[in-house]
Amino acid sequence: MAVRIDLNISLDGVAMPAGQSPEHPMGEEWGKIVAHYAATRTFRRRVLHDPSGEGTTGVDDRYAAAYFHGVGAEIMGAGMFGLHAYPDDADWRGWWGDEPPFEVPVLVLTHRERPPIEFANGTRFEFLATSPQSALTRAQELAGAGDVRVGGGAGVARDFLAAGLVDRLHVAITPVVLGRGVRLWDDLHELERDYAVTSEVAESGVIHVTFAR
Amino acid sequence: MAVRIDLNISLDGVAMPAGQSPEHPMGEEWGKIVAHYAATRTFRRRVLHDPSGEGTTGVDDRYAAAYFHGVGAEIMGAGMFGLHAYPDDADWRGWWGDEPPFEVPVLVLTHRERPPIEFANGTRFEFLATSPQSALTRAQELAGAGDVRVGGGAGVARDFLAAGLVDRLHVAITPVVLGRGVRLWDDLHELERDYAVTSEVAESGVIHVTFAR
Repeated sequence: MAVRIDLNISLDGVAMPAGQSPEHPMGEEWGKIVAHYAATRTFRRRVLHDPSGEGTTGVDDRYAAAYFHGVGAEIMGAGMFGLHAYPDDADWRGWWGDEPPFEVPVLVLTHRERPPIEFANGTRFEFLATSPQSALTRAQELAGAGDVRVGGGAGVARDFLAAGLVDRLHVAITPVVLGRGVRLWDDLHELERDYAVTSEVAESGVIHVTFAR
Repeated sequence: MAVRIDLNISLDGVAMPAGQSPEHPMGEEWGKIVAHYAATRTFRRRVLHDPSGEGTTGVDDRYAAAYFHGVGAEIMGAGMFGLHAYPDDADWRGWWGDEPPFEVPVLVLTHRERPPIEFANGTRFEFLATSPQSALTRAQELAGAGDVRVGGGAGVARDFLAAGLVDRLHVAITPVVLGRGVRLWDDLHELERDYAVTSEVAESGVIHVTFAR
């Protein structure tokens, strides 16, 4: 029943690089901070539906597998669903393809509500214009005995952290300096006060830091 | 003959917390990011002149010992020497006490030159109004076969990094969020491009990240 967040950031704390464009909806340098995750066996199987079993199986993959384990419902921002790309297309079903990797109810926070979208694999997107606390209450109803994951983007994650709603935050820090973009830590002064913090370094060089209540 | 920098920062990259005052010349929360270093046996012996042999002896102490090893000359900003505290006192000898821990020539970058100050233990402060590159040339003359360490503060360290003058950067990241202050990484976009980056986590929970050419 925990509320969890996992984020990939740079050494300078950027979770969403600057420079979004139609070709690079997540920013040109986003690939740098997700490369370790995209290389894992779990990501390849779960997100790319690659049955080959290829991909890394070390520390990064352990976090990737944990990311998907035990989640009963997900909350994400409109940008992460893909609403910002096609705000006026009522038929747009998001950029996650026909088999979104969530396989649970997903609440998409947006100012413009729209009808739910359902996929055969258990993913069901529901669109809500509400506060983080209200969205969490709804997500917990849907999650049953499972955890609620706040998927992102960075702004949504920060809102939930600032509101004190998060039980576990895992950040994977790639040691690169991006310089511009949405920084995770801004306005989260003394976040560590309510958590035990542990860190470990993966074979890839990525630093995994976990804040746990 | 390497040029080296060691810095203590927070998870959000703050090397110099906001809120300096006479009682807290380095900012109220500075203690949070130097606690691991101040706890080491090396710091206690070298900076506090504590002969007891007490202090931590793990990973943090290994970096603390390396900090003092092989340095032939040091460069620091006026603030790190203590000039900002007493700018108009010509007799002010800095806040490092009668046995400054450097024991080598130290170039203090300042806009107002003043006569050198010498201590019995080999520390000699020389005051220069010049560019990073010129200060480095002078420091290398003084260092002989030793390394040049750029001691700080954060602004001076960033100037040397931005100018591409640094061979090795070691940052000790304490997993706390300070929120306000001088951030190390600003304007250092793609710093990693010229370096191999390695990381390890100390027993204290501090993350040591090293950029080496």
